[in-house]
Amino acid sequence: MKAFNDSDFLLTNETAKKLFHGQAENLPIFDFHCHLPIEEIYEDRVYESITDLWLVDKKNGKAFGDHYKWRLMRAHGVSEEFITGDASKKEKFLAWADTVENAFLNPLYHWSHLELKKYFGIEECLTRDNAEDIYERMNAKLSGLSVRRLLEMSHVDTLYTTDDPLSDLSYHKLLKKDSSFHVHVLPAFRADDFLKAYHPDFPRKIQMLSAKVGYSIESMEDLKKALEERLCYFQENGCRAFDVSFEDFLYVPATKEETEEVFHKAMMGKKLTEREVGIYMADILLFLGEACKRHCFVMQLHIKALRNLNSHAFATLGCDSGYDAISDSSLIRPLSHFIDDLEKKDSLYKTIIYPLDSRDYETVLAMIGCFQKAPYPSKIQFGAAWWFNDHKEGMERQMRNLAEYGLLPHFVGMLTDSRSFLSYARHEYFRRILANLIGKAVEEGEYPNKEERLSKMVRDIGFENAVNFFTKD
Amino acid sequence: MKAFNDSDFLLTNETAKKLFHGQAENLPIFDFHCHLPIEEIYEDRVYESITDLWLVDKKNGKAFGDHYKWRLMRAHGVSEEFITGDASKKEKFLAWADTVENAFLNPLYHWSHLELKKYFGIEECLTRDNAEDIYERMNAKLSGLSVRRLLEMSHVDTLYTTDDPLSDLSYHKLLKKDSSFHVHVLPAFRADDFLKAYHPDFPRKIQMLSAKVGYSIESMEDLKKALEERLCYFQENGCRAFDVSFEDFLYVPATKEETEEVFHKAMMGKKLTEREVGIYMADILLFLGEACKRHCFVMQLHIKALRNLNSHAFATLGCDSGYDAISDSSLIRPLSHFIDDLEKKDSLYKTIIYPLDSRDYETVLAMIGCFQKAPYPSKIQFGAAWWFNDHKEGMERQMRNLAEYGLLPHFVGMLTDSRSFLSYARHEYFRRILANLIGKAVEEGEYPNKEERLSKMVRDIGFENAVNFFTKD
Amino acid sequence: MKAFNDSDFLLTNETAKKLFHGQAENLPIFDFHCHLPIEEIYEDRVYESITDLWLVDKKNGKAFGDHYKWRLMRAHGVSEEFITGDASKKEKFLAWADTVENAFLNPLYHWSHLELKKYFGIEECLTRDNAEDIYERMNAKLSGLSVRRLLEMSHVDTLYTTDDPLSDLSYHKLLKKDSSFHVHVLPAFRADDFLKAYHPDFPRKIQMLSAKVGYSIESMEDLKKALEERLCYFQENGCRAFDVSFEDFLYVPATKEETEEVFHKAMMGKKLTEREVGIYMADILLFLGEACKRHCFVMQLHIKALRNLNSHAFATLGCDSGYDAISDSSLIRPLSHFIDDLEKKDSLYKTIIYPLDSRDYETVLAMIGCFQKAPYPSKIQFGAAWWFNDHKEGMERQMRNLAEYGLLPHFVGMLTDSRSFLSYARHEYFRRILANLIGKAVEEGEYPNKEERLSKMVRDIGFENAVNFFTKD
Repeated sequence: MKAFNDSDFLLTNETAKKLFHGQAENLPIFDFHCHLPIEEIYEDRVYESITDLWLVDKKNGKAFGDHYKWRLMRAHGVSEEFITGDASKKEKFLAWADTVENAFLNPLYHWSHLELKKYFGIEECLTRDNAEDIYERMNAKLSGLSVRRLLEMSHVDTLYTTDDPLSDLSYHKLLKKDSSFHVHVLPAFRADDFLKAYHPDFPRKIQMLSAKVGYSIESMEDLKKALEERLCYFQENGCRAFDVSFEDFLYVPATKEETEEVFHKAMMGKKLTEREVGIYMADILLFLGEACKRHCFVMQLHIKALRNLNSHAFATLGCDSGYDAISDSSLIRPLSHFIDDLEKKDSLYKTIIYPLDSRDYETVLAMIGCFQKAPYPSKIQFGAAWWFNDHKEGMERQMRNLAEYGLLPHFVGMLTDSRSFLSYARHEYFRRILANLIGKAVEEGEYPNKEERLSKMVRDIGFENAVNFFTKD
Repeated sequence: MKAFNDSDFLLTNETAKKLFHGQAENLPIFDFHCHLPIEEIYEDRVYESITDLWLVDKKNGKAFGDHYKWRLMRAHGVSEEFITGDASKKEKFLAWADTVENAFLNPLYHWSHLELKKYFGIEECLTRDNAEDIYERMNAKLSGLSVRRLLEMSHVDTLYTTDDPLSDLSYHKLLKKDSSFHVHVLPAFRADDFLKAYHPDFPRKIQMLSAKVGYSIESMEDLKKALEERLCYFQENGCRAFDVSFEDFLYVPATKEETEEVFHKAMMGKKLTEREVGIYMADILLFLGEACKRHCFVMQLHIKALRNLNSHAFATLGCDSGYDAISDSSLIRPLSHFIDDLEKKDSLYKTIIYPLDSRDYETVLAMIGCFQKAPYPSKIQFGAAWWFNDHKEGMERQMRNLAEYGLLPHFVGMLTDSRSFLSYARHEYFRRILANLIGKAVEEGEYPNKEERLSKMVRDIGFENAVNFFTKD
Repeated sequence: MKAFNDSDFLLTNETAKKLFHGQAENLPIFDFHCHLPIEEIYEDRVYESITDLWLVDKKNGKAFGDHYKWRLMRAHGVSEEFITGDASKKEKFLAWADTVENAFLNPLYHWSHLELKKYFGIEECLTRDNAEDIYERMNAKLSGLSVRRLLEMSHVDTLYTTDDPLSDLSYHKLLKKDSSFHVHVLPAFRADDFLKAYHPDFPRKIQMLSAKVGYSIESMEDLKKALEERLCYFQENGCRAFDVSFEDFLYVPATKEETEEVFHKAMMGKKLTEREVGIYMADILLFLGEACKRHCFVMQLHIKALRNLNSHAFATLGCDSGYDAISDSSLIRPLSHFIDDLEKKDSLYKTIIYPLDSRDYETVLAMIGCFQKAPYPSKIQFGAAWWFNDHKEGMERQMRNLAEYGLLPHFVGMLTDSRSFLSYARHEYFRRILANLIGKAVEEGEYPNKEERLSKMVRDIGFENAVNFFTKD
């Protein structure tokens, strides 16, 4: 019987233990995609309560926080009062403790206990019974765990925030001047608002962009000019990462006139057909893809996240509240059409594709294989198991599939994609699973036991590949 | 080398053995969905031949029985004569023995041997060579294995049959009065006939409903009124379970006028377009979903079973003859639209969703997570591995996915979905797999070894959760 | 720690070792589908360089060879010069060595080392460091490894090439007369060119067929008459295998007039709609399916291979250059419609279905189960893990799914589907995985340890079933 969460957690063989403890455990972190709030890093926020840091925080009446946990609490039958509502912080913590104790084989059980151990030195398992005690002990530690301290404890070398293209990146600028802080914090260009012409907010966002650049946006040409200015601005501020998230991936190239017509229809707030959504998306995506090449931005495509399925909850809690899911639409023809169009224009730069629907893993990998090209090792990357797939089995499948279809040693590895400063424990989780997968294959005779090569593979996937991918042209 | 089908069958670790033998093995059964014939329970039928009970039974020239076995016999090259045809009962049994011996890693191999051991005390493996002997020995036991005796031997506490909404439930009423029999047998409302407006039989079914309620059904309003009467009648007779099976899930909300038009078109026996099928379905489903909430019926959705793919075989043998398959259409948008519409009307009651296409497991689970709500623990349930998925690996995947996306301890667990009184052995199969999955995770250090909590989890999933889900409001 | 690639490679239990070494290892090979060049067999080619044999060979400026390896080299960042370009043979070999060393858990790592050992007696692992040495040693052996010698060393009993319906099969005829060579080499009818009415080359192919048969083809009737002549010609030359590969499977039965119209549109080189493609395909497929029954040709359906996704690469390198992928379209309704149409006409003969998209495994298996029929054991076969799925986990999943849905002992087993004479090592790979899967199940008590039956299962799947399927009516 292996103990839960001891130093060999998830390591089932000797090679894995050697690889994890000898190579992976203390590597720095290059986090190329997360949702951490830059202002809190700049201000070096100290959280008053573990509930604020771990579960839910309120700003101007809107609840922010770890909506993964909120979902699980709802599945446990916890009333909204104790999740995003008006219950006390302690009550919310107790409700979470009662939930997590039931989270058998759920990644939140593992993550939570890794975080308890790593940042708070608490080795017990959180239960309803010891929750009050642990609540006090966690709170007591918070004063020593400012945001910057947490990043340093996690050995974060670099992190990319996720930024509105309209942002003036003022906190990034301030932080850059602060020589006391050694973590590199860089902006990423999050293009979603300008991709979703079907969104009710689209005209307003275009108007805001117009205000930002100081001229009116009346055509696709104007729009691209304005976006180009923002891309330049981001590049000047150290950005190397471009990111966009899709519900269904639609790509319908059309004539200039048709595209212009769709844009105007969208700007008038009219409802677009699916085809029209695809026409706009094809044109703007192709422009942005080419821009990524010009600016040396790594293009990150997050695909098939269905947002806000629960209308009632959306009306009361807004987005990012734990009401998202996975689409099951067909992907490969439109996605490969887009990638091929970029390749035809010799404008396909480094790209990471994250399919949310795990049924797409193998079809996406096969498609990726059609666009690999020198001189980069695995220029088109198959992104780490994303969101709902970010559990032990999902990570193993993602890496195993990648190995079967491509070259695992070139994988850029883990990112947090998180809103919490405690989430860097997930890198430890990932590294344990990686080391175990490699060790297991070697011990079972599926790959020779070449120590140096295995060690390098672990270090590369754990850190070096991401550095190279994001910092070298 | 582990022996086949010994007392530790499928239990690969000590924790699993302790959980199964100590907790799961002797739990009663709450079977919330099966296709057992109520009249045979009432009459306490004694089968004359194991072939009738196990393989095929004939009534009025139509073959009934275990079409899972029929399919496998056809895959073995057995002629129809020895399956549903005119061969003798013994010849059919011999053909099955020859088939099952080849069913390596097929669940029917496991189920058959669990049944042989549990109800007949036969520990040998069935082979072509010993088939004649085993045929005699099984037949010799049948007089002591009446239907009621089999249910008692299986520790069945409660079972829900599957009933035509037009049924007068006379056998259920008679059985309720029979104080000598302690198994609770309750009706379930099987709505299929009133969902499938595209079915050639639809107009006739509406006319039968009309005859039943005593007024003519000329509109959707009439239809809903009539169905409501039947729902009330079922409720009065102890029903708490509503069930419907879909081929592709279509859901196209439309205006009252459009819907009415589709209904009239269907009643005239005209062929509906896919959109029209979806329009009718959206309206009637929403009505029925709301009715489930009013009547406290658990809504069970069985999704993507393609029926009767072999036209020639359907023409000769009719439905439920082993010619069904799995659809691969997109599901999440229409399904979540329906669930969201119910939630918007505050009419989403307890629901169990069974996707037949295992590629939908994770997308359905993610969608389910958007609609969980207090006060129920896991109000929307991800149903046990259904039909073609009902094998060891399928069950493990269903439970593992559920654990990764939600809370396994709240799972309502196994149902038989069967037409055979011997099928309760499948609960043993399920419990072994459940105990093994839990034990394995604990022994590998993925969850702490908390004996009491693990024991409770096994008992809850094995029995208590289903009781609570179906008997408490 | 198990050594890599020793005699017990991939065999993790004693039963597996006994089954592999005692039964599987030395079985002959019945290869019912490959892409080997018949002229090289006839001429008994001796390769000058291992690069020609293993990686890339050039004829008339066009590169031929193992495009699986090319893809992987591109993923490694190798420049095209060293893949299909003008670099020296040695440089290409070194680039491959550097690539394969990184192919952790990729099937090419396993296949390459099995081939090194089996045909060249080289037991070291190929690395960048020893690549020059191994290059020389492999080259030094080539003179003793003529094409025929390789086939004999592999114990090939029979192989089916893949042939253009217009071929005069002259090499097959010549080879048949050569009594010094004991491998049976038979042609297979590859129908693709006459299925894809949407292909730019379609009119030209029809004209070539017309020239071949000596009359003009003006209608579907003419076309079928001409194809029938070719089918007869193939049958006279020993063909028993029919093969076709689909991108998306479209099947839209229409009237004779509509179909004729589509054919004429295609012959004029006009772009067809998706529906029109399906109309032509339905008519010609049904004709060909019926023809298979008349001629006792096993129908092999390869489904959902997307070709030539990279337009730029296609323009420079042409097809079969490593730029193919997997479609993710819906399959079951059109495919079962086709199979059902054949069954309705009592024209469904032995068939093997190979889904490229592994998400279709279970839906295809469920559909297959609707069309099994005496007297054949598993008349409709679920083909071995094809192409991108042809790795350890993919093969295990294919066999495990088959066992769960049908009868594994009737499986016709492995084919190479390869363009390389060294690829017969993949049969060894398959047999190891098969033996291990069976052994593991038995040792874990999931099937009784009946030695004789298990041995027979291994021999049948390894060889006998394929012989029976392809040589007996």
